[in-house]
Order: sequence, then structure tokens, then C-alpha cells
Amino acid sequence: MTGKTDTGRFFEDFRLGEVIVHATPRTVSEADAALYLALTGTRFAVNSADPFAAALGFKRAPLDDFLAFHIVFGKTVPDISLNAVANLGYAEGVFGVPLFPGDTVTARSEVVGLRENSNRQTGTLYVRSRGVNQRGESIVDYVRWVMLRKRDPAAPAPSPQVPKLSDAVAASALTLPDGIDLSSYDRALAGSPYGWDDYAPGERIDHGEGVTIEEAEHAMATRLYQNTAKVHFNRHSESQGRFGKRLVYGGHVISLARALSFNGLGNAFRIAALNGGRHVAPCFAGDTLYAWSEVLDKAALAGRRDVGALRLRTVAAKDHHCADFPDKTGDTYHAVVLDFDYWVLMPR
Amino acid sequence: MTGKTDTGRFFEDFRLGEVIVHATPRTVSEADAALYLALTGTRFAVNSADPFAAALGFKRAPLDDFLAFHIVFGKTVPDISLNAVANLGYAEGVFGVPLFPGDTVTARSEVVGLRENSNRQTGTLYVRSRGVNQRGESIVDYVRWVMLRKRDPAAPAPSPQVPKLSDAVAASALTLPDGIDLSSYDRALAGSPYGWDDYAPGERIDHGEGVTIEEAEHAMATRLYQNTAKVHFNRHSESQGRFGKRLVYGGHVISLARALSFNGLGNAFRIAALNGGRHVAPCFAGDTLYAWSEVLDKAALAGRRDVGALRLRTVAAKDHHCADFPDKTGDTYHAVVLDFDYWVLMPR
Amino acid sequence: MTGKTDTGRFFEDFRLGEVIVHATPRTVSEADAALYLALTGTRFAVNSADPFAAALGFKRAPLDDFLAFHIVFGKTVPDISLNAVANLGYAEGVFGVPLFPGDTVTARSEVVGLRENSNRQTGTLYVRSRGVNQRGESIVDYVRWVMLRKRDPAAPAPSPQVPKLSDAVAASALTLPDGIDLSSYDRALAGSPYGWDDYAPGERIDHGEGVTIEEAEHAMATRLYQNTAKVHFNRHSESQGRFGKRLVYGGHVISLARALSFNGLGNAFRIAALNGGRHVAPCFAGDTLYAWSEVLDKAALAGRRDVGALRLRTVAAKDHHCADFPDKTGDTYHAVVLDFDYWVLMPR
Repeated sequence: MTGKTDTGRFFEDFRLGEVIVHATPRTVSEADAALYLALTGTRFAVNSADPFAAALGFKRAPLDDFLAFHIVFGKTVPDISLNAVANLGYAEGVFGVPLFPGDTVTARSEVVGLRENSNRQTGTLYVRSRGVNQRGESIVDYVRWVMLRKRDPAAPAPSPQVPKLSDAVAASALTLPDGIDLSSYDRALAGSPYGWDDYAPGERIDHGEGVTIEEAEHAMATRLYQNTAKVHFNRHSESQGRFGKRLVYGGHVISLARALSFNGLGNAFRIAALNGGRHVAPCFAGDTLYAWSEVLDKAALAGRRDVGALRLRTVAAKDHHCADFPDKTGDTYHAVVLDFDYWVLMPR
Repeated sequence: MTGKTDTGRFFEDFRLGEVIVHATPRTVSEADAALYLALTGTRFAVNSADPFAAALGFKRAPLDDFLAFHIVFGKTVPDISLNAVANLGYAEGVFGVPLFPGDTVTARSEVVGLRENSNRQTGTLYVRSRGVNQRGESIVDYVRWVMLRKRDPAAPAPSPQVPKLSDAVAASALTLPDGIDLSSYDRALAGSPYGWDDYAPGERIDHGEGVTIEEAEHAMATRLYQNTAKVHFNRHSESQGRFGKRLVYGGHVISLARALSFNGLGNAFRIAALNGGRHVAPCFAGDTLYAWSEVLDKAALAGRRDVGALRLRTVAAKDHHCADFPDKTGDTYHAVVLDFDYWVLMPR
Repeated sequence: MTGKTDTGRFFEDFRLGEVIVHATPRTVSEADAALYLALTGTRFAVNSADPFAAALGFKRAPLDDFLAFHIVFGKTVPDISLNAVANLGYAEGVFGVPLFPGDTVTARSEVVGLRENSNRQTGTLYVRSRGVNQRGESIVDYVRWVMLRKRDPAAPAPSPQVPKLSDAVAASALTLPDGIDLSSYDRALAGSPYGWDDYAPGERIDHGEGVTIEEAEHAMATRLYQNTAKVHFNRHSESQGRFGKRLVYGGHVISLARALSFNGLGNAFRIAALNGGRHVAPCFAGDTLYAWSEVLDKAALAGRRDVGALRLRTVAAKDHHCADFPDKTGDTYHAVVLDFDYWVLMPR
């Protein structure tokens, strides 16, 4: 008469090549956009106004790309990372079709790597996760790896298998959603005069403002994504945990950094790929996030004169204004909480 | 030049048999679903995804049944319980048609009982409240009783009238919304392998996780329901009140317990009836809720092989993990804040 | 490689007659209405229910008028008031067409006055801002003036130009949205028995309840309006600022006062004009707002027997119940945070 409580999978519960179908399907709406706006303060015009998006060829304003990512990610949590000790990394994230109000998101993950740690208490799990819409079109596809507890340290170890992962998505793999034409993009209305041609590799941009995170805000955002990771919601148990308090979902930090990046990157209307990302330090309610970005690379898109891609590294710091571009010395970061590497698309 | 301020009705303002039309009519939308999700973390697939709901015969994803209940309940507050000392109980709650985005909710209540207390300062008011959609179809119909202050202790007492209330809604009175067929219900997508046949009376299920309540969260939820009970919103006056702080709306506790119950009862896709409920102890911001459930009874539905009903008792506790099923000894509860008795429907 | 960060305009960056197109266009939805409800607790029936609004001739429930105002206002902030020392006033605010879900808001401002202060560190900027829908119809049009910092105190002063502003919008300039007929207005459903004929100039109404503001609430509201004023969001920098903490957006205070005013003014279904307003004192998270109103004037609308206008002065106070109508003695206010002068429409 027990056993109906799901306590999550442990390292030894995964098999290489296994495909896991995730609950819960979710139909998104304009309300997700509005809540995301209220929780992050994002101001990108394409996601804010239907006529602006329609003028570029979108059927209407798509939901923010990271909102789409978090909804997909959230679905994987109950199956993949409920017993995670740490989120170790992301790679090879490719954004596909935009997500529109009315679409229904489902997700599945394939186990692409397993390696037990030498202490035999934990292991690293690699999964490739994909979120699709109701037509089965890929919204986002990415690899992440997490350190998982074993239920039983004596459980036999699988033969170690670590996938080869690209350092970055190749510029040639970046795509624009079908039918998009940026030639009539209105920079005045979008709020930034700068286009792809105005950015140069090596350029650094301080995003200026800071935003303080409240418990209610990060918890609402994370619940909106139906992400069930315990550390974000339970003050009672976390008071006895590693940090003594609830932890902010790393994805909320990504979203806040992206929203801050509007100031300086206001025409980066689309996330095209996620190359990698590191949650350098935990964030807690009360922390104030600032961000700066560096242009790592630029790439034209084959056959397009209206749009190009920028590879960005966006760094978020806490309680530290980014006018001095806080960074790392060797492997030691200063004030930094997020080091994020991704491709954006921008009108030329 | 005074008198336009509504100070609420007192015990002596009610007459047996009186019908009260409540303000404010409310058209619900997908935004109510999204906010409810962000505030409670609920994960039931039927309420989350249109195609999942449509596969069962719903025209689209209905709003969560307790969201519907809270909206109806909220409308009754300005007329019924603004001067309540305590919410004493619920009974005979029957859920009718599902509530869909675009529907408009109105509510009315009939006074079905009145009994002055011996101190002559207060009395118990019993009302049967019904919320209907724009077609007049019942969304939920229930009795509740509250202890109300008298404006004037010397006001004459009505002859005492206490309605006979059932201990529980009879299984034979439970209905499924029209046109619903559970035979194609997808348990993998819904996130739980267990159906009606897998549960047995007496079975206890620990729902595992805990969720901490923030002031902004319970206040937003309660305002979303246009519930105006003063104790939830006013720190200034409540600092001088009974608890020295704002009280969490009991309905928010019900919703959080229901959301937690997904872990172990993930296929309980529909609330069919509310048999009774007791808010054993107050909840405040900062409290962490946990929950467990007991199967009180099972009932087949006449002529149906695809679906059955479970009578559940869900108990929520605060700052106390429910692995040990905190309960009562005699009449004394331990850590418990909610003891709730209701019928759910589940695929077989 | 610097210079893409927008640090906002300073006093010397404005020219008389200049027209500024504001980013970001925004398509509003039912989600804005639901969030506004959850954040303010408003209960006016016209904004809450489509059938109620439709019975009066609206195509559906319009968004709350102050929600519309805040969205327009928010757009002006990055261009107008990022470097404001103080918001000094509003005048000549006229509400035009109602804002409906699906409409897209854009805004522009014209510089209508400039006057450097004698200290040469700051100056007063006057702008007339207008928000329009996708058909170019005016949603709201108003003048506001702010004290702005100069980037360079030595920058030359423009010749002082101060616009002549009306003390109040003339009753003859008030309009009802096209096609509206209040003759079938249902006061029972709306929640108040009082119509235009029941109010008299000089009458004072205590709105009764109080509502406490949380950081997450005012920050979510202000972000929903894409208002980027730094003082509302950044605990880290504001801890070194004038008040040592984040400031609540004055517009959120207006909205809470309006929501409280339902108790006593429940049929004031439409804001017709904004005559002036003064944010007398700052509000912070933790403050509890109360409000009272005075009827300043009444005006019939030409040719209408179904509706009239009331000129109201709504005063909000903090941590002070308004049963004693806190006010000013000479220029000194007691407990007051907002003194707001506006016209509403009400059925007769």
C-alpha cells in the first residue's frame, strides 16, 4: 500500500539509448507571454507585439525563446534531475520553430551518456532532450548533463560512455524560421539603432541596469514551467540544505540576463542556438543581477542580406554593477553567477 | 453624506430563504489557468493541454476545478463572510459542468440556516452557494457555514434553523461531464501509471514534496478570485489582529495540497464532489505545506468501465514532512492545517 | 567599442517641439487583465465580464483604464524619465477609445516645455504623450512634467518655455466611447446600488479596506508595463539611494487606490479624464494603502440621460485607516501618499 509516490530516478535507473516520454503536455497561451514579461521585464519587440512580428513574417508574436526552452526543460526535471546534485552543462542547443500561443508542447529525452564517478555515490547522466509542438516540429533540442545520486552505491556501474559534444553550434547549422524577412524591421519601434553590421567580435557591452529577485518571482516563474526541482520551492527542507535557503532556478537567471541584455542588444530578436552555459554560483532571493555581453563571433547566414548571427557570451553577476565587466581570472570568477554562450539573430 | 461604504452584512442582516445575487460577474480566460499554474504548480494533464483534454471529449482544457470553486467562493465573500469570525465548514459540494476559458461566472447564495450563539454576540449562518456559467449551468454548488458577528448583540434572534447536511455526497450522485470517454487516456503523458483499479480503501499516499507560501503569492491568488476577506491583505490591521499577521486564504491551501497530490494521484483528473473540509490551523506566509492522502472509499460509476470515483481525504501539514502521515489523536491534530474530504474521478 | 548601452536622455538632450517615438509596441491580451486583477484586486464589472460589458455596448470587456494608462506611460520611461529626479505632475489627461484584448499599443511624446532650474544641475521637462491602438486611435493623451538631471551642468539652457495647462479637463470635453448605452446597466450584478444621481459635490467616501504592497507585486506590475525606471527594481543600488530601498511605482499606487475605491464607487465604470495628481510621499513594500474620495464636481453629459460624470479627488494614505479622511493642513499632508484628481463616468 505504498509506492505510488514518485521519488525520481537515480543514476542506476538509466540505460544508454533509453527514450523517456515526459509528462505533462502543455498548451501555451498569451498568458505565458504576459507572465514571462511580468517576471522578467523583457522588451524585445518581436515577442511583444503581433503587428511587429507579422511585419517580419511571423504569423503573430512568438513566445520568448527562453520561455519555450524553460517549458521544455521543466518537463524533463521530474524524470531526469529530481535527484541531481548539480546541473553540469548544456551543449548543442538548437532552436527550431518558434512557439506560438495555442501550441502544445511535449518533450522527450534520450540517454546519450552515462559515467559513474569514482566515489560510486554518484554518476554523470547525459541526455538529449527535445521539445516539440503539436505537429511534432522541434522547438528546441539540446544536450544537458547532470550529476545524479545513486540510490544504492553498490549498484553495478554501466560501461562509461561520454558523448562527443561540440563546443559550439556551427554557424552553418543556424536557421531562420520559415518565411521570415527582416528587411522591413523597424529599429526605432524596436528600441535600438544597432544592427548586425554595427557589432564586432571582441566588443563588450555593459547592459546597465540591475534587477533584484524575489522569492515569489522565481518560484512563480519556475512553477509556470512545471519544473519540480525541490530546491526552488521548499524553505523548510532547504533551511537544512546546502545553502540554508531556496535556490533560484538557473533558467530564471538566464531569462533575467537576456532581458537585461535588451539594453545594448535590443535587436537580437531571436535565440538561434545555445552553445554552452555554466551556472557559476547559486542565486538566492534578494540578489540583484546585472549583466554584460561579449561578441564572440559573427556569421552571415547563407543567402541572406537581411539578417546575420552573433555569437554572444553573456555574463551575469550579482550585487556587482557590470560597468567593469566582472569575469574570471584563470578559473576563478568574480561576482559572476552565469557564463552563457549562445547565438542570436539580428537584422543587418 | 456617509453610508456608501459597504461594511458587510452582520448576522442579523440575513433572513432564512433569502437569495443573494453576488457581484462581480467574471469572464475567465487562459490567463486564469496560467496564473493558477504559476501560483500552485499544478500538473494535471487535463487542465494543462488542449489536445490531451480533447482526446477525452472535453472541448478544450477546462480550468482547474478548484480554480472554478475559488472564483465562485470569492464572489460570495463580500456578501456572506466579510464579518465572519470563522469559516466553520463545507458540505454537499457538487461539481457540475467544467469551466472553460471564455465562460462567464456568476454566483448566488440562499440562506439555508441561521442559529444565534448563546453569547448573543455571534451566530452561525448556513448558505447554499451556486456558481453558474453564462448558460446558467451549475459549475459548483455547495453549502458552507460561517460564524458571523452581530452588529448589535441586542438584535432579536431568528428562530434557530440548522439544515440537515450529508456527511458525504453519495457516490450515486457523482457525474461525469457530458461526452467524456476515458478509454484513450494516456497515462504516460499524464505522468502517472496508476488508475482507479490500483487504489484501495485505507491506502495512504505521501505526496512527497513541500511548497513554501509567500505573501505575494497567496495575495495574488486570492485577489485573482476577487475574494475580499480583509485578513489576507492588510498587514497594518492584522498586525493588531488575532494572529498578528496576514492569514493565507484557506482555499489557497486546498489548491496547494491538490497540486502536491499530483505525486501519487496524477490521474485524478477531475474533482467530482466536496464532502467536507476543515481548516484545522491557520497558514501564514513562510509556512511550507506538505500533504498526504488516504483513500476513504471507491465507487464505480453506473454503466462506466472507463472511469471510477475515489473518495479521498487529503491532509496538509505545515513545516512537517508527511512521510509519517501526521494526523489527529482524538480531536487533537499534529502539524495539520487542512483535513479535506472529496471525491475525484480517475481512469480505470 | 562602447556606447551601445542606453543611459537615457538628460535635460539638455531635449528640444522644444521634438517628437519621440517610443519602443516597445505591445499587443495586450486577457492575460494583462488577469494579472492586473491579481495585482490590484479590482472588481469593476465592466472590466471583469464580457457579457456585462457587451450589454452596455462594448464589444467585450475593455482592459482597465489605468492598466491602459500604465502601459502607455511605461513606454515613455526609457526615453523621458530614466534620469528623472522626480515626477512633478500630470495634466490634461483624456481617455479616448477603450483598450481591448488583441489591440496593440504604441506611444509617442512631444516636448511641450523646458525650463532649466536656477542651480543649472536640473531642469523641468514637459511632454505631451499619447498612446494609440493599431488604428491610430487615441487611448490616452496626457501631459506630464518631470525634473531631469543634466549630464553637463555647463550645457547651455534652452529659452524657458512652460506650457499653459488646464487645472482640470472641462466637463464638456468628456466623451463616452462610441455606441455605449448605460440604460440596461445592472447595479446588483455590478455590486453597488449607487448611481450618478446619488452623489453630491462635497461628499466624502471612506473606501474602507487596506491593502499591503509586496516587492514582488509592485515589481511584477511595473514590469508588466515595461516601465524601466531603475528605482523600482534594484535593491542593490537603491540601498545606496535616497530612500535606502526600492520605491513603488506611483502608478501602482493609483491602481490600488482605484481598486479600493470600488467600495463606495462601484459603478464608476470608466475613467474619463485625469485632471492632475500628486505623489505626495513615496511608497515602499510593506506599506498598507487605504483610500478615500471626495466628489469635487458633477456634470451631466450633453444629450445623455443614462450617464453622468463625477469629478473625484481620491486620496490614498499609508498605514492609516481613512475613516478620518486624512488630508492636508495648508501644504502639509498627514499620512497621505497620493492626491489624485480625475473624472469618472457613472450610470444615472
